[in-house]
Amino acid sequence: MSSSAVQFAGQNHARFLAELKDLLRIPSISTLPEHAPDCRRAAAALAGELKRIGMENVRVLETHASSPSGAGHPLVYADWLHAPGKPTVLMYAHYDVQPPDPLDEWLSPPFEPTERQGNLYARGAVDDKGQLWIEIKALESLLANGGKLPLNVRVVFEGEEEVGGEGIAAFVASKPPELKSDFALVCDTELFAPGLPTLCVGLRGMIYTEIEVRGAKSDLHSGMYGGAAPNPFVALAQIIAGLKDENGRILIPGFYDGIVPPSSEELAAWRSLPFDEEEYRIAEVGSRRLVGESGYSVLERTWARPTLDVHGMPGGFIGAGAKTVIPARALAKVSMRLVPGMTPAKSFALYQSFVEKIAPSGVEVDVRLIHQGDPCLVPVDNAYIRAATRALREVWGKDTVFIRSGGSIPIVGDFARHLGIPTVMMGFGLPDDNLHAPNEKFNLKNFELGIVSTIRFLEEAGRSPQHVK
Amino acid sequence: MSSSAVQFAGQNHARFLAELKDLLRIPSISTLPEHAPDCRRAAAALAGELKRIGMENVRVLETHASSPSGAGHPLVYADWLHAPGKPTVLMYAHYDVQPPDPLDEWLSPPFEPTERQGNLYARGAVDDKGQLWIEIKALESLLANGGKLPLNVRVVFEGEEEVGGEGIAAFVASKPPELKSDFALVCDTELFAPGLPTLCVGLRGMIYTEIEVRGAKSDLHSGMYGGAAPNPFVALAQIIAGLKDENGRILIPGFYDGIVPPSSEELAAWRSLPFDEEEYRIAEVGSRRLVGESGYSVLERTWARPTLDVHGMPGGFIGAGAKTVIPARALAKVSMRLVPGMTPAKSFALYQSFVEKIAPSGVEVDVRLIHQGDPCLVPVDNAYIRAATRALREVWGKDTVFIRSGGSIPIVGDFARHLGIPTVMMGFGLPDDNLHAPNEKFNLKNFELGIVSTIRFLEEAGRSPQHVK
Repeated sequence: MSSSAVQFAGQNHARFLAELKDLLRIPSISTLPEHAPDCRRAAAALAGELKRIGMENVRVLETHASSPSGAGHPLVYADWLHAPGKPTVLMYAHYDVQPPDPLDEWLSPPFEPTERQGNLYARGAVDDKGQLWIEIKALESLLANGGKLPLNVRVVFEGEEEVGGEGIAAFVASKPPELKSDFALVCDTELFAPGLPTLCVGLRGMIYTEIEVRGAKSDLHSGMYGGAAPNPFVALAQIIAGLKDENGRILIPGFYDGIVPPSSEELAAWRSLPFDEEEYRIAEVGSRRLVGESGYSVLERTWARPTLDVHGMPGGFIGAGAKTVIPARALAKVSMRLVPGMTPAKSFALYQSFVEKIAPSGVEVDVRLIHQGDPCLVPVDNAYIRAATRALREVWGKDTVFIRSGGSIPIVGDFARHLGIPTVMMGFGLPDDNLHAPNEKFNLKNFELGIVSTIRFLEEAGRSPQHVK
Repeated sequence: MSSSAVQFAGQNHARFLAELKDLLRIPSISTLPEHAPDCRRAAAALAGELKRIGMENVRVLETHASSPSGAGHPLVYADWLHAPGKPTVLMYAHYDVQPPDPLDEWLSPPFEPTERQGNLYARGAVDDKGQLWIEIKALESLLANGGKLPLNVRVVFEGEEEVGGEGIAAFVASKPPELKSDFALVCDTELFAPGLPTLCVGLRGMIYTEIEVRGAKSDLHSGMYGGAAPNPFVALAQIIAGLKDENGRILIPGFYDGIVPPSSEELAAWRSLPFDEEEYRIAEVGSRRLVGESGYSVLERTWARPTLDVHGMPGGFIGAGAKTVIPARALAKVSMRLVPGMTPAKSFALYQSFVEKIAPSGVEVDVRLIHQGDPCLVPVDNAYIRAATRALREVWGKDTVFIRSGGSIPIVGDFARHLGIPTVMMGFGLPDDNLHAPNEKFNLKNFELGIVSTIRFLEEAGRSPQHVK
């Protein structure tokens, strides 16, 4: 921990934090078209900062938007390639954030970063601007030592992670020379528990869909037509209720076929993690009881089993009070998480045909795929994972635990498939950081130790023999 | 048709229509708190007009709002009581309107009345400002003849009909001397078919409810928590799917108990009405097929059977694109129509306990009653119904048909229960007038003949012996 880069980071912590707050003030919400200029503003700010700290070939790269959400937010690229004989790391993070709604549940405004009790509260604090800033500040600290890095570095930041990441996926699939690397570092995950160094080695994939149901040709009065006209919400309720049984099992035929379960060693390691289902229920979820497939632990259910959730049901009357309308159409936003052995294409096809089959008569149904991501597992027996565990042990004083995440980071699968490189998912969030929810936060100590961990990891990785994985 | 009042109406039709357009320009949407000033503006305009045409004791009466929708829009009262020995009519209509959404489906702005192809398009054109204006213009035409009316008249207009009408219900229940009358005229219904004079003699009641489901203590990331945290939309879907079977039968135990079916004479009369289910499906509903309880005709299903509809499901993410959230809570706006033999109180109690019983574990459920109305049947064997059929025969050249409506006009039951008077429901809408929907309209010929019909009805009713019902 005595490297001069670590010392530089310690001396500059207050400035690093102030800069992060400036970044968090930009409402770069990728899913809302009206915030596209903010995404562009965030990208420009990152490019400027990468240049300032001494990175080279800094560029804002346009992506070709094909997403129905109207995305098309640029990538930010930079490199420093003056360490011959050393490996090359591809450092990834994303600068876009989720919408902040429901706004009235935030204790401080989502785009006015606020410190409370050792945490920094803001939309994007931990997902992922805070962790992106860890990467930049680690590089700045290393470059402050005579303008040199301990290995070759490429940086690619995206602005469409929360809307499916189609731009970067297409870029990676084109295997551009800019991305030629030996391994990737993704800083977008969390510690399993406070103070416990953690590497994520598995991610769920997903398909995010919309079901649109149309009944009458226009909205109708429920008094005049109730009892004869089809009700799209009732039809959607019947469809959704038909997708999952009361024990949380998805009823789509064939949906579970081919799933690769965790090994018995991995399951044994999960059982030894400091995890109490009842405490998780009370402190993190806060519901009357937990749901899900019987016969599986909570960690298995959230890491290694597919699931299906409904995110919203637009249509009809949602104001205060009463409107007696039978809406002509209604929608449900439904996503499924996928696990190793499943593919988005097959899962969507099974889902789509099952929804069409169980839809009640009288209505027309459209099932649309909004975005998708492959599930992935990363091998743990490579030099970069070992370098990471050495660095984490030194900084946190504990052995690293290997976990999976129930979330989806599709880019990790893309790096493996198209660039043939393993990814180290080293992140510093905490389980109660309120990702995608009101009062998102980032623990300030984790921000600080995250920078130190990343500095030390890059230094250790620079000692790894190249091309040994 | 040769009365001088009828001649006056004919000569002043263009002015009557222009005045109606002014009234329609006021967006008196009772359910939206931000439009409360518009409701007040509409009430003031009506009071001014009633005074101008020669009505007396014109007053804007405050109501005591207890509605959760934040209503509290005033009543407008007026009378003319200088026909000793003649009966007294209580003329009712409502000046409030439904919200206009979805706005993008209107071909002309909802609050800019527009004539197209013999119709006047605007929110409230037929429900109920156009029909309210028929009442005022019939009175104006009669008063133009020397300032006298053929019978005693009380007028009461409300501004909360679309939000449950609690204000007028409480006023009627207090049996104020202002409402002492021999019969009521409600102008808020429709002709069964174009050119076919129609009196409505039965209405469904209703209960309008909200089901709120709460799962986790705050919104959660569906990747991290999907498979363990309860999803309120999935729970609502399971509840709604459990309320109604695929044949449209409501599954709440005891819900159908006590229903009084239509008499065989009434059913026979309905079968002779000019009604084609296939044409209704195509032209009015426009859905792939009609739904509803098997074993009942469409007219029975919409007039004489209870039903259950979902109007909207607020909560979660309803923007464009994707947000991977498990919302902490979600709502469903659910209403049930009731028929003779059912009461709102008993129906709500059965519904509430059934929803609580079938709610999946893991979530908390609240079931709230937003507003209610009794179903009602009016006897057809009274002097005022006979006066109405005489007037309608003269104006339209056809015998009157007696129908029911699937809608709810709770005030009709209140008039019977608290004032002991029968109601004549004489209305001039058409089945395709898009009530509560985009492109609401009123046929201009029906507006004109509605005024003439009302003039002649009041003249005929003035000849009826008082207190003979």
